[in-house]
Amino acid sequence: MTSSPVGLHRVLEPAGVLPQAAARLDARPQLWPDEVRIAVERLNLDAASYRQLAEAHGHDGAAVREAVLGIVEQRGKMQNPVTGSGGMLVGVVDEVGPESPLGLQPGDRVATLVSLTLTPLRITDGLARWDGQGEQVPAEGTAILFARSIVAKLPDDLRPELSLAVMDVCGAPALTARVVRQYVDKGTKPVVSVIGGAGKSGSLSLAAARQAGAARTIGVVPVERERETLTAAGLADVVALADARDPVALAQAVEEAGGPADITVVCVDVPGCEHGAVLATAAGGTVIFFSMATSFSAAALGAEGLAADVTMLVGNGYVPGHADFALDLLRSEPGVRGLFDSRLAED
Amino acid sequence: MTSSPVGLHRVLEPAGVLPQAAARLDARPQLWPDEVRIAVERLNLDAASYRQLAEAHGHDGAAVREAVLGIVEQRGKMQNPVTGSGGMLVGVVDEVGPESPLGLQPGDRVATLVSLTLTPLRITDGLARWDGQGEQVPAEGTAILFARSIVAKLPDDLRPELSLAVMDVCGAPALTARVVRQYVDKGTKPVVSVIGGAGKSGSLSLAAARQAGAARTIGVVPVERERETLTAAGLADVVALADARDPVALAQAVEEAGGPADITVVCVDVPGCEHGAVLATAAGGTVIFFSMATSFSAAALGAEGLAADVTMLVGNGYVPGHADFALDLLRSEPGVRGLFDSRLAED
Repeated sequence: MTSSPVGLHRVLEPAGVLPQAAARLDARPQLWPDEVRIAVERLNLDAASYRQLAEAHGHDGAAVREAVLGIVEQRGKMQNPVTGSGGMLVGVVDEVGPESPLGLQPGDRVATLVSLTLTPLRITDGLARWDGQGEQVPAEGTAILFARSIVAKLPDDLRPELSLAVMDVCGAPALTARVVRQYVDKGTKPVVSVIGGAGKSGSLSLAAARQAGAARTIGVVPVERERETLTAAGLADVVALADARDPVALAQAVEEAGGPADITVVCVDVPGCEHGAVLATAAGGTVIFFSMATSFSAAALGAEGLAADVTMLVGNGYVPGHADFALDLLRSEPGVRGLFDSRLAED
Repeated sequence: MTSSPVGLHRVLEPAGVLPQAAARLDARPQLWPDEVRIAVERLNLDAASYRQLAEAHGHDGAAVREAVLGIVEQRGKMQNPVTGSGGMLVGVVDEVGPESPLGLQPGDRVATLVSLTLTPLRITDGLARWDGQGEQVPAEGTAILFARSIVAKLPDDLRPELSLAVMDVCGAPALTARVVRQYVDKGTKPVVSVIGGAGKSGSLSLAAARQAGAARTIGVVPVERERETLTAAGLADVVALADARDPVALAQAVEEAGGPADITVVCVDVPGCEHGAVLATAAGGTVIFFSMATSFSAAALGAEGLAADVTMLVGNGYVPGHADFALDLLRSEPGVRGLFDSRLAED
């Protein structure tokens, strides 16, 4: 058996699937020739996954910690069985296989830009330094990178937690910017609405949309406190208050803010936002779903049921250059930096 | 309370959601002023829904029939609680509200082009004429159309069952053609691979891709019998045999057939095809997911995990003009007509 660039050789069951679809991975620290081993320092759980675990365990930190440990022990990776999502990690390169194409050296401090859902992972400290509160998890253990994994060296000018939080959601601003530019290239400066505009992926997406040439940016938030925060950050031309799970209310709020939107970006990690996103988007427009809580059938059937001619994109977490693009947005936009700093301070 | 063009006034619970997201609709036959009542003749269940019901009940027709009756009785609509999907129906216009904008007359024979998942439905004959085998369900009862519903008069030159089967999947060829034309307009004739090419939406999508200017069409089928059928139909330049749930095997089969594809169209209603579709698509390419069995998170995280820069579209069942476009494909392509005729004969 030879190793595979996408990690097929680490799949224990079921046979033949890719690592992300596997029920269980081989997380042993011994390397195949094209692999890299990381000494883990910190996990950054996906927001939807952490929320589900916290709610399922009544926000009892010790129980959440046990749940995460149990998942990693059982599956050889951190993949929430309910949400299907994972997160990412930061650590230091420990050993580089002689055939690895990733260009890493032992001692490099890196963040993985592929999901924890397909990264072989062992935890060796019982997560003793984590109180189970918040998505950032100090951890000791080992993780494995395959030949085709994506990894970024952490920049020297930013705290690792900050870089990690940005990289975790860096696909959203990159894809948002690409779609906005497609409109601009065709001669239309689009109205862009970001549902969940005060969050991590949302604030970056608002900044990306403006930089890429949006005619107007609308940030939609669910509560007054977030409205104040996002308004103060100055990232949206208009900030609207609406529950994204209420399609009629959402569409009305976006309309009053200067919509409907040509491009709606869904960054809010709660189920049931598909219909509202479609209803708040102009005919011929585009909806980009970044939330892992998105239901495929609700989106497809919702658009059909509303007779809505909208293009709906599954938010791909990978766009070439996405990490550098998002880090540059953080550096150049004080509003983004402020939101990230205050979110990290809360964790 | 006034009626809403998208049917909010028929939602019983939970309050405030659109009809497709509702747990229960008010299916009473009395009309609001902008509604239309249909005397139902036949339901056409969504393939994923029928398959799930048949498998859950061991292919026992009587049990499947009871399950469908139970769902409609409980929910006021035919929406499979597991798959979330529905289907469509054909019937005769029974009464037209004075404010309906749909342009229908009593006696018009029509098919609904919005999903059964949001159509208020009552069944009055206990589905006595249906043996529970197959997706086409003779039925008596009433269905309600809202002001913004989409409905098509059945053409005179085709059997109603045939028109219904075509209209049920008419979003797939219309969107496939649109995406192919976008490539052609940019100067690239794309290679198009259709997973599940011998099925209803698959065969129409192959015909649409060729007509829209694809450089090469590849039909992927899971079994030898379908390979023979699709080859005989002449709808694909190459027919490849592969299990779409096996990403490595699928990518290899498409590669050998002249891939990777610039555009991959997923028309096969089984879970677990997301990774294979991504892996079998060229960098910079597009995947269109039409299967209701698609998992949003598997698609999003799969593409990220494979570092695949592909655009992934949620197959929207509504594209303006989709029904006429699909019916014209059926009329003009003997291969499509033959596949539909033989599938209907099997039902």
